[in-house]
Amino acid sequence: MAENEILESIRGRIIVSCQGTADTGNPFHTPEHMLLMARSAYKGGACGFRANTPPNILAIKEAYPQLPMIGIWKIVEGDNEVYITPHMSAVDTLVSLGCEIVALDGTDRKNARGQYAWQFLGEAKKKYPKQLIMADIATLKEAELCAKQGADILSTTMCGYTEESKQFKGVCNFQLLKDIKEKVPGVFLICEGKIWSVEDAREAFESGADAIVIGTAITNPMSITQRFVDLAAKVK
Amino acid sequence: MAENEILESIRGRIIVSCQGTADTGNPFHTPEHMLLMARSAYKGGACGFRANTPPNILAIKEAYPQLPMIGIWKIVEGDNEVYITPHMSAVDTLVSLGCEIVALDGTDRKNARGQYAWQFLGEAKKKYPKQLIMADIATLKEAELCAKQGADILSTTMCGYTEESKQFKGVCNFQLLKDIKEKVPGVFLICEGKIWSVEDAREAFESGADAIVIGTAITNPMSITQRFVDLAAKVK
Repeated sequence: MAENEILESIRGRIIVSCQGTADTGNPFHTPEHMLLMARSAYKGGACGFRANTPPNILAIKEAYPQLPMIGIWKIVEGDNEVYITPHMSAVDTLVSLGCEIVALDGTDRKNARGQYAWQFLGEAKKKYPKQLIMADIATLKEAELCAKQGADILSTTMCGYTEESKQFKGVCNFQLLKDIKEKVPGVFLICEGKIWSVEDAREAFESGADAIVIGTAITNPMSITQRFVDLAAKVK
Repeated sequence: MAENEILESIRGRIIVSCQGTADTGNPFHTPEHMLLMARSAYKGGACGFRANTPPNILAIKEAYPQLPMIGIWKIVEGDNEVYITPHMSAVDTLVSLGCEIVALDGTDRKNARGQYAWQFLGEAKKKYPKQLIMADIATLKEAELCAKQGADILSTTMCGYTEESKQFKGVCNFQLLKDIKEKVPGVFLICEGKIWSVEDAREAFESGADAIVIGTAITNPMSITQRFVDLAAKVK
């Protein structure tokens, strides 16, 4: 598919992120488990996937070669906080796996090499001009910076996880979607993160999201349980 | 645990129902998958489980012998609509597996033997007076009938699935919880079904639920996806 066709195939639709990690104690974390999650998402009508690490991406891509894959590779480098596809060899690998979309940290933070994440994103786009590049950002400024670097997709993934956006921890920042839609109108906009209910999803679309990525609320039964358990503890 | 201790161990808490079925195309449906769901629920803080069929119950019970299990056995008999643990040999099996709670259809409908479901529930309770029996009902009248038959727990499981309650298909009937709490105050009350968000769970507790059973919204990624996909189709 051409880049534009890929974007049109996900417009107005739901992408499911399949990203269990053993680190968190999540019983669902192997490539086989992630494939079962992807199968469930596919049967439920998802238009594509987001997955982390080559083994998980491969397992899903093999089963669903026709569906767009947003590939990421979380790599923690020392105590640096930029960890979503943070260096070129990770980008090279994701491109070589055939990911229709490669997502990178696009925040205004320096990576382990002292380079701003959005700057490195620009380098990746220059190296792979035909590859759809998705910028995981947290603020309007970062969205603007990444758009200038050639990002094809802006995504609110990091909102709530950076120093500047920490007030949005656990809640979806719908205003950020509206701001990006208004100030960076030409770039495909994805709402990712903190979508828990259909009401949230509706608000995200109404705030300007061209597509929505949902992960935890669909593919992480441990975290979903935890959320209900926390509520029960509060009520009683 | 004594019956009362079992009830106190689930009071004000979340029970997770692990019930994938292959029939619906659900990729998660084997006992191994159900155990992974139960592990996730346990790690998320669930206080107990609900599971269907002996193999699924056994897999979970073996891993978590200390947690209350609500056992059911869905058996469709011809075109009869009563299918949750509908006859005595199913009850016998669930009791023998060590289910702390055995749930049965408690509606005002006739089973395949021409007996009202609530009436058969009474027989099961008479045969196993020390066994906690849970009545899956749809209306206040059925709650009252089952309470008179000795049900230890009343649960709104069937609301939305019977002719009389079909207007509640897909939505939680919080008024039913309030009505049962008021008219049948002595019996432990569970809200089961159609709890999708923490807001729903809060309202269920506030409406009088002593505990909540959540299934699909936690353990059925296919159905959760479907719900978001349906919303996206409506919005766009």
